[in-house]
Formats: sequence, C-alpha cells, structure tokens
Amino acid sequence: MSLLVVGSIALDSIFTPFGETADALGGSAVYFSVAGSLLCPVKVVGVVGNDYPIHELDRLAARGIDWSGVEQADGESFRWKGKYSYDLQSRETLETRLGVFARFQPKLPDAFRAAEFIFLGNIDPELQLGVLSQVSRPKLVVCDTMNYWIQGKKPALLELLARVDVLMVNDSEARELSGDWNIHRAGRWILRQGPRRVVIKQGEHGALLIEPTRTFYVPAFPLENVFDPTGAGDAFAGGFMAYLARTGSIGEDSIRRAMVYGAAMGSYAVEQFGIRSLEGITLQDVEERVRAFRDLTHVALAEALS
Amino acid sequence: MSLLVVGSIALDSIFTPFGETADALGGSAVYFSVAGSLLCPVKVVGVVGNDYPIHELDRLAARGIDWSGVEQADGESFRWKGKYSYDLQSRETLETRLGVFARFQPKLPDAFRAAEFIFLGNIDPELQLGVLSQVSRPKLVVCDTMNYWIQGKKPALLELLARVDVLMVNDSEARELSGDWNIHRAGRWILRQGPRRVVIKQGEHGALLIEPTRTFYVPAFPLENVFDPTGAGDAFAGGFMAYLARTGSIGEDSIRRAMVYGAAMGSYAVEQFGIRSLEGITLQDVEERVRAFRDLTHVALAEALS
Repeated sequence: MSLLVVGSIALDSIFTPFGETADALGGSAVYFSVAGSLLCPVKVVGVVGNDYPIHELDRLAARGIDWSGVEQADGESFRWKGKYSYDLQSRETLETRLGVFARFQPKLPDAFRAAEFIFLGNIDPELQLGVLSQVSRPKLVVCDTMNYWIQGKKPALLELLARVDVLMVNDSEARELSGDWNIHRAGRWILRQGPRRVVIKQGEHGALLIEPTRTFYVPAFPLENVFDPTGAGDAFAGGFMAYLARTGSIGEDSIRRAMVYGAAMGSYAVEQFGIRSLEGITLQDVEERVRAFRDLTHVALAEALS
Repeated sequence: MSLLVVGSIALDSIFTPFGETADALGGSAVYFSVAGSLLCPVKVVGVVGNDYPIHELDRLAARGIDWSGVEQADGESFRWKGKYSYDLQSRETLETRLGVFARFQPKLPDAFRAAEFIFLGNIDPELQLGVLSQVSRPKLVVCDTMNYWIQGKKPALLELLARVDVLMVNDSEARELSGDWNIHRAGRWILRQGPRRVVIKQGEHGALLIEPTRTFYVPAFPLENVFDPTGAGDAFAGGFMAYLARTGSIGEDSIRRAMVYGAAMGSYAVEQFGIRSLEGITLQDVEERVRAFRDLTHVALAEALS
C-alpha cells in the first residue's frame, strides 16, 4: 500500500524554556513523513525555496521518504518562528514568512497518482481539492485544516469535507468549524458534513476518534519531560496513516490501533527538539510504547456487581 | 466493609447557562454519599445549621446513608453560590458563607470508629488529622484538599500526606501543592510525601492514577449535554471509594476498576442539576456506563509489526 502526504516543508525557529533552534527542519509534511516512515514508505508533495538544505532531505530519503514530489521553486523557503510559554501550554507566533509556499500548487508526479492512503495536510482547501482530483483511486483520504481556512475558505472546506473519509483537527479547530464548544457535539456536526470519522487531537490530553455510533479515546503518554511540542500533531497523523497503509486495513479495529500508533509517534516527537527524537527511534521503540499505551488504560475484567 | 466520609454539607445556589437552583442540597459529603450509596452504605460526618432541610437528608437515608454523624449546630448552614461560564469551563464563586461549618469539629459516633474505608473530604488538614485519630484500624485512607489549605496550612497538610494511602485532588491543586506544572512530575512529588497512590482529576479530560511504577488513565465519558459540573469530583470520589469498600479489595486491579466506577458516577453527576441525576439512577445504570467506558478505550490486540 502506498502513502502520500501533501503539506508544508518549513524551516522552524523555536524558543522553549529549555533551549532554542534556528532554521531547523519542520513543517507538517516533514514531521508526518519522518514519523510515518518508521512504519512504511512515504511519498511527499510540497515546495521548498532555493535556500532549503536539500542535503538534509536527501539524508532522510534513506528512511523511505520519497521527496520526488517536492518542487524547488525560486524564492525563500517557508519559515516559522514561535515561542512557547514556561509550561508549554501556549505558544506565540513571532514570525511567519510563507515564501514560495504562498504560491504552492501541488502537482503529483505520475508515480504518485496511484497512492491509496492520502493525507491532505493543512493547506488551502482549494489546493487540497486539487490534490484529490489528481489521485486515481484512493482507499482512505484524511485531511487536516486550521482556523485560517475555516474563517477564510469555508465553502471550499465544506466541499472538501464531503469528499474525505476522515477529518483530523485539534479541539479548537473542531469547535471553530462547528460553532459548538462541546467537543462531542462538534464531532457529530462534522460527521454530518460528510466524513465517516473525525479525529480530534487534544494535545497533552490525548485524542478522540468520533464515529457515528462509537467514540474511542487514546490518552497522551505520561511524559515527565517535554521539550518541544512542535509537530506532535503531524507526527500523530504520520503514525496513524502509516499504520493503516502498512496493514492495508481500514476497519474499526485497525483505526483504533492506528490511533495508538499515532499517539506513540506524537509522544516521541515532543521529547526532543524538532524531528530529532523521531529520527533517533526504531520500530521496536514504537512497538514498546504502543504496549505501554495499552497498560495505561487497561482494566482487568471483573464480575458485574448487579 | 464500611465506608466513612467526612466533608461539607451545604446549600448550593448555582447559575449555569441552562438554568439555576437556589439552596439545593450540595457539599462534598452529600455528592460523595449519594453516589457511593449506589454501591454500598455510607456513614457521614458533618455539620449543618438549624436552617437545614433535614427532611431531605432523611429521604436520602433510605439509600443507605447514615447521617448519625451529622451534628446540627446553632447557626446558619454552609452556603455556596456560583456561576458557570457559557461553556462550563470556568466558574466564579459569587458568595461563600461558612456558617456553622467555620467551627466544625468532626466527632465520630462510636459506631463509626471501626470504619475501614475512610474519605477525608476537603476540610482543614488539622481536622482531617483529628478524624484519623478517631478511627481504629482503617484499611484505606483517601484524602482531598484544596488551594486554600495548600497555601495556609501546608505543614499540617504534609503531616496528613505522610499518613494517608491516596491523595485525590484536581490538576491545579496537584500543581500548586508540588510547585511543578508537569502533572506527572507533580504526581511523583506527591508520592514522595507519603501516599502510595495519587489520583488527579482533570474534569472533562478524565482522571489519572499515578503509582510508583505505573500510570492509569480513565477518560471522561463523552457527553453531548452537560448541565452542571458541580459535585462531579465528589461523585467520582464516592464511586471510587464505594466500589473498593463493596469489594473489600485494594489491589492494583481493583483500584483501576474503582477509577472507572468513579468516572461513571462523575459523568452521571453532571447530566442534571445538583444531585438529581445521581438520585435517579440505579446500580444497573452504573454498570452499563462502566461497560461503555471499557469500549471507549478498548483496542483489539494485533500482532506486533516488528
């Protein structure tokens, strides 16, 4: 099965109480593919400027990341600069320079059109629709979005929702999109727009999978040391999609297991700056954390009291 | 096995976006015992003024709540008035009148001293220590506290922590007590003060059980309609303690199951105003929700990928 992601490829400058980085590899497609490639090969569609450290992407290609869908355009790469609060609970964007990303028009190489598992990262919903029109027979389409598009491109976003299988957003995005502060009602509202499933990421509180008749909850892994929350949600998405693409199944049980693989990837992502932690782990590490997740919510059966 | 709670018995006036109540039965010992009595008899120690609607307590006695440890003192009952925000995420205390509660000196009837499961609700830690000195051979002692005592009575609180089995608090209290914003490090800090276990309640995000080598997480039940969050934490405590008292076991598996019973009680508590919802349910309802909790985090086993 093949997995395709379209999203941002950025250079991040991040300040946390524990240190800082400058122009480090970042962006949703990078976090997604570095995490996902632990489970299966990932094809990436994106754009970088002529100042991007291509050798770093080349290095990551050895993990099974196919960058042949990444265009190098004339101009500056997408740069994001942000600062986290002392407790990492909030962050302030200090600077966003879109550069070549502002004129991004995703074009899929022919070899990518047959991809079956498609993740439409957080870009203009019109471009997300454009990507969909380029894939031939997707088995599962999952999309992300953000407040900017909810406010500015709602009609296109609703058109997209009618054509995807899963919407994966964080809780504030689900609330803003639905106009409902209750996260479960917000999830139901989104289901009525088309997706069969909604995944709502809640940061340090885990993630919810809302389906028409069932809800699943995976907690965040208990971490005593979190260094950099950047990219956790994209690493979650990468683990989620790559688990499904590897196993080829999109049944209820598989989707729940994919949530746990996603949460495991997200938990690794935050333990060091940027993609460093995800680069340093193996599939065995991921499996070990997946087992630890099971213990985290496991309740031994007992006879009913009544 | 017998279960004892000491705590507040109040008259609450609550404003939510969905309605309001005036001088309704409330207080930690009331929520605790109305929830707990679904599973086993509860003995209550507390104080009310001579204006308290005693006939309402008499009605609740039929559930198996023994109020013989409640003193009726000369003066006004404890009254609390609060208002919730539109999304129930925050609340403002409009008025607190301690009345006879300000001079509360818990005195256990002789028949209460043999109680084996003891819940020390949120009162002055010196009084909590005084209750402990009146019980003969407790099997499990769990205590609650709040920011007021953390700030004003820290030495007595630390003395108490060295003598209890479990501290059960909400996340902001755990952070304030430990001086650490990371909830898992905060939990470890508390374990070092004496308790073998810490339960950290996180409202709509569920509750954590932190033990020296394991952590357990129970989510909050997915509710599309929440009417009044008041008393959810005390109902959780009542379900948790009453499950353990009913089964008589305090092993790891039992404690995890007790967390689920607690979460089930908390979820019912918020579905109507005050104690109304807890009064209207049966043990069968609780068992049904406990089963639903299992499905909420259940992941079918699959072969490891590596």
